Amino acid sequence: MDKPLHIALLGAGTVGSAVAEILLNQADTLTRKAGVPLRLKMVAVRDMAKPRPFLAGHPVRLTDRPQEALEDPDIDIVVELMGGYQPAFDIIRGALEQGKSVVTANKEVLAKEGFALRQLAASRGLDLFYEASAGGGIPIIRPLRECLVGNRIDQVMGIINGTTNYMLTRMSQHGEEYEKALADAQEKGYAEADPTSDVEGHDAAYKLAILASLAFEAPVPVDAIYREGITKVTADDIRYGRELGYTLKLLAIAKNVNGEIEARVHPTFIPHRHPLASVSDAFNAIFIHGEPVGELMFYGRGAGGGPTASAVIADLVAVARRRITGSAGEPPVPSEFPVIKEMGKTVSRFYVSLKVIDRPGVLAAIADCFGKQNVSIESMIQKGREQDPVDLVFVTHEVVEANMQAALEAIRQLNVVHEIANVIRVEGDA
Amino acid sequence: MDKPLHIALLGAGTVGSAVAEILLNQADTLTRKAGVPLRLKMVAVRDMAKPRPFLAGHPVRLTDRPQEALEDPDIDIVVELMGGYQPAFDIIRGALEQGKSVVTANKEVLAKEGFALRQLAASRGLDLFYEASAGGGIPIIRPLRECLVGNRIDQVMGIINGTTNYMLTRMSQHGEEYEKALADAQEKGYAEADPTSDVEGHDAAYKLAILASLAFEAPVPVDAIYREGITKVTADDIRYGRELGYTLKLLAIAKNVNGEIEARVHPTFIPHRHPLASVSDAFNAIFIHGEPVGELMFYGRGAGGGPTASAVIADLVAVARRRITGSAGEPPVPSEFPVIKEMGKTVSRFYVSLKVIDRPGVLAAIADCFGKQNVSIESMIQKGREQDPVDLVFVTHEVVEANMQAALEAIRQLNVVHEIANVIRVEGDA
Repeated sequence: MDKPLHIALLGAGTVGSAVAEILLNQADTLTRKAGVPLRLKMVAVRDMAKPRPFLAGHPVRLTDRPQEALEDPDIDIVVELMGGYQPAFDIIRGALEQGKSVVTANKEVLAKEGFALRQLAASRGLDLFYEASAGGGIPIIRPLRECLVGNRIDQVMGIINGTTNYMLTRMSQHGEEYEKALADAQEKGYAEADPTSDVEGHDAAYKLAILASLAFEAPVPVDAIYREGITKVTADDIRYGRELGYTLKLLAIAKNVNGEIEARVHPTFIPHRHPLASVSDAFNAIFIHGEPVGELMFYGRGAGGGPTASAVIADLVAVARRRITGSAGEPPVPSEFPVIKEMGKTVSRFYVSLKVIDRPGVLAAIADCFGKQNVSIESMIQKGREQDPVDLVFVTHEVVEANMQAALEAIRQLNVVHEIANVIRVEGDA
Repeated sequence: MDKPLHIALLGAGTVGSAVAEILLNQADTLTRKAGVPLRLKMVAVRDMAKPRPFLAGHPVRLTDRPQEALEDPDIDIVVELMGGYQPAFDIIRGALEQGKSVVTANKEVLAKEGFALRQLAASRGLDLFYEASAGGGIPIIRPLRECLVGNRIDQVMGIINGTTNYMLTRMSQHGEEYEKALADAQEKGYAEADPTSDVEGHDAAYKLAILASLAFEAPVPVDAIYREGITKVTADDIRYGRELGYTLKLLAIAKNVNGEIEARVHPTFIPHRHPLASVSDAFNAIFIHGEPVGELMFYGRGAGGGPTASAVIADLVAVARRRITGSAGEPPVPSEFPVIKEMGKTVSRFYVSLKVIDRPGVLAAIADCFGKQNVSIESMIQKGREQDPVDLVFVTHEVVEANMQAALEAIRQLNVVHEIANVIRVEGDA
């Protein structure tokens, strides 16, 4: 048996302490799987005073200086679970520069610096594994890296933010409005006091940058991702959509259309029968289409200590095994930035909800605005007859985004239209 | 760049020819991923006379003697796609004995000889990869082997036979009876002229043996798997089940209950909201529960040339990369046979459909038979009032299989019971 590999664990929150517990309590299994003992040598924490019962009786050094992991030449593998951009990025880069392998769950660093870090790791024959950075416990990064070579992947669509999926499920199943669903999610611990990162789609955009970069083998910058949150979604939208055959999800979508990449995060209606439509509560799922594999979906818990620790431990064992067999390092990482399609040139179907005066000729005026921009209507329903205004809801066929925006601008000018209540994209085969 | 690895492809049917095409047409990509050129040196076919247009212009030796792969010392990797038990088993074993790595899609050989072959491969530091043997294009074998270490998996439930899932979807959505659904499946090319292997659950049992052995890290013999096909399922059963909140699927189920393994393939009702319930048509999906990862599901196409070739190519690239980096071979394979729970001791819920005389006292007599065996009833519906006989449908709470069988035997003796029309197990949280 080889001499043990020494591990530094940076961060001991929910995930970090779950990782430490598995490392310490399932040492035999992990040793057998890795082919070498994995010794947890140090744990970096923010608060040295806080009790860490899971470390009791184990010879593990506790520190509040994560940099110690870089200074200690014994450390073979750095497990970075601190989160946030800095100092995590400097520490990951520093670890690789010192010949250490890295396992991380850091979506922000991977989304912003993933390609540079992967190139650094590849150039030094080191591993940088990050299964937990997107999809939590769901094996998706490694399947994308290893199990789909020989495929041309043209689509990734994911429910990759559990908080918003929980909220949309509440709104859908209980008819709750946004504010109530948010309060529920906060009460359950799914949403933070400041929910911006989740509800505005930042979290999903980071994860999409990671997934799209792997799927298309090209660095998709997080800044290039169009992003729209769920704050304007109403219970009415969800109800009207359902009548028309659609379920509302916050989707992270990336497509490779003839070599041009589009990447966007926004509320999306998908047909009830689409595999993503039945993914409810805080679950995540990533749907992939490639040739020749066809459709794939990976489903599971996208957050939480246990599921995330599961992904971190698997990475750690793989990295350890590759380190001792001398097979670390991935093939050269493509670095050419892809052509990103402008949002105005993307093609979608649309759900459009208008508040209009209920009077003859109104539909004709609206239809004229759509028609002039080549927007063709797939279905229409009117709600609240005898009220003023009434809701008029359209679902369009596929149309270029810029044309749709022009049609909406014209509709907004009509006297008979009180308000464009909502515009939501529609994906998936009808 | 290392010198090329030489590959022998045994079998050139739908899958084999798709694999050959990818190997020959995407050589550059595969070389970059594998870190070494992959050269297709020989293809073994059954019919030498049949044209193989995908080989035109490539210096590939065609033979009808798969043994040539073993005789040729240049061959590094054998890709076995012949199917069936023999000669495939001898060839896979022979290849490993000669130091060649093996990629196979052979469910029968893996189900029957998987552990012996894995031990042989491990003892020689060679790779035996078989992603395509279960779940077709779905990455499931490698996630089980590599991405879930550190988990204790206690449940695997899969829709792993596309033919029967297509048939049950037809029966469910169109109210078709079994014979009509079978004819449909045969017409579409999903079912063979002799459908026994699919409809009687043999195919699913092979795949379950493979998945359960990996999930529980113990050789689960295919003979130990309880097996019941879908031939007795009626459109009425599906309709009654739906009213009670359940969808019917042919499930392959393996559980680890306190160290005792149970493994069974049978028609199963699952709640409509279970992730497996919305897997329709010829799609496959494998649902897994483990600690700490929680619930996972992997969904995709379980058969067909393209999806299966996707899995074979990914295995081939991985095996090639491991071969040139000297990291081939898995950790020692556990060989201790697990304790298999007798079917009579397993616990399930049950759907029971009876044809009875519509007369006061009948329900009491039946309830008495159930009660004497500790079978408690969750719900009951009566169908076809004013007819004779009427359908009486029960769903039970959890009960030990042997008690259920005893209760059914007693019910069968009742004069008022014409027939026990069907008994179908129920899984998943209510």
